[in-house]
Amino acid sequence: MKVKTEYLKLSTEGHADIFDITERIEKALKNGKFSNGIVNVSVIGSTGAITTCEFEPGLVQDIKEIFDRLIPAGNYHHDQAWGDGNGHSHLRSSLVGPSLTIPFANNKLILGTWQQVIFIDFDNRPRQREIVLQFLGE
Amino acid sequence: MKVKTEYLKLSTEGHADIFDITERIEKALKNGKFSNGIVNVSVIGSTGAITTCEFEPGLVQDIKEIFDRLIPAGNYHHDQAWGDGNGHSHLRSSLVGPSLTIPFANNKLILGTWQQVIFIDFDNRPRQREIVLQFLGE
Amino acid sequence: MKVKTEYLKLSTEGHADIFDITERIEKALKNGKFSNGIVNVSVIGSTGAITTCEFEPGLVQDIKEIFDRLIPAGNYHHDQAWGDGNGHSHLRSSLVGPSLTIPFANNKLILGTWQQVIFIDFDNRPRQREIVLQFLGE
Repeated sequence: MKVKTEYLKLSTEGHADIFDITERIEKALKNGKFSNGIVNVSVIGSTGAITTCEFEPGLVQDIKEIFDRLIPAGNYHHDQAWGDGNGHSHLRSSLVGPSLTIPFANNKLILGTWQQVIFIDFDNRPRQREIVLQFLGE
Repeated sequence: MKVKTEYLKLSTEGHADIFDITERIEKALKNGKFSNGIVNVSVIGSTGAITTCEFEPGLVQDIKEIFDRLIPAGNYHHDQAWGDGNGHSHLRSSLVGPSLTIPFANNKLILGTWQQVIFIDFDNRPRQREIVLQFLGE
Repeated sequence: MKVKTEYLKLSTEGHADIFDITERIEKALKNGKFSNGIVNVSVIGSTGAITTCEFEPGLVQDIKEIFDRLIPAGNYHHDQAWGDGNGHSHLRSSLVGPSLTIPFANNKLILGTWQQVIFIDFDNRPRQREIVLQFLGE
């Protein structure tokens, strides 16, 4: 059993900018020479989120719109105190969660054919992001 | 420390069909002869979700109804592109998340008395499902 | 590679009482003499949740209010059956999730500067809570 830490860097536009990061995780997994285990995928920061979806343009648009409906941008207490207008970004991140753990076997992520790992940047401005890949396995 | 991969198979009706999978995870844990560690429980596919709840009929019905209210079935961009009418299923899955990690000690899951691990099939048709149990521990 | 289990105890007021537990996790991590790995943070019980946020008073208030809007207290099937009036507490917990896994390296959690690990007690009464910290790493 061993641990390996990798970092992905991403330039985002914010406003629920959505990235398929599956291939980059697969590549890091292959480089790490693991057979079986888990990878914890975590975004550093409190306005992003990690989950899975079928990564196709219609659904990517649906994700943006459902969050505009459930937790719209607006005048939150956070915005009044800090003036950065991204209260909704924080709330969406806390709800979806900043981290996802995925199993792998035979050096491949165990995912469905139409199931991709996505990073959503909910912030309200472009960001340089770091995503941590923590591999544990053998 | 070791890793062990098990698979659960489930036949579901879809439409937020909810299953208590706690006992099946406990059984796999006992067979795996682990003492202390974690189990990552992940559904393969992008229209299911894993979380916990008190598994009783009232709350099971409440879960179905809260998702019908928060993310109703309807005409999403995904549906227009693919015609399978399950855009809401995907959005619910991305929101709740496809995976949950649970600690165990002394060969038992650490959960509350009224806390069961559930799989929710949000798809809009019956499905044959596979859930991955990835055990890491000693 | 080793596993270590720690427990945090908390007295809460319920009603979306929110606690920053980052320092207590950092302290347990230091005591455990780990270098690199993950910690799974899980609440025992089905009316609490673990996630991250920027822990400042405005956002703490925003979190309370967004859940009052998305999943208000009310008359759920669970309440009719059990009479304890906390159906909304269960639903919120299932949605956010009872568990979060966080990576660490060089004996420090990998989090953003304004990203704290929080426990939210969604129950509708004061509770004595136990949160499990399951460390895996080397």
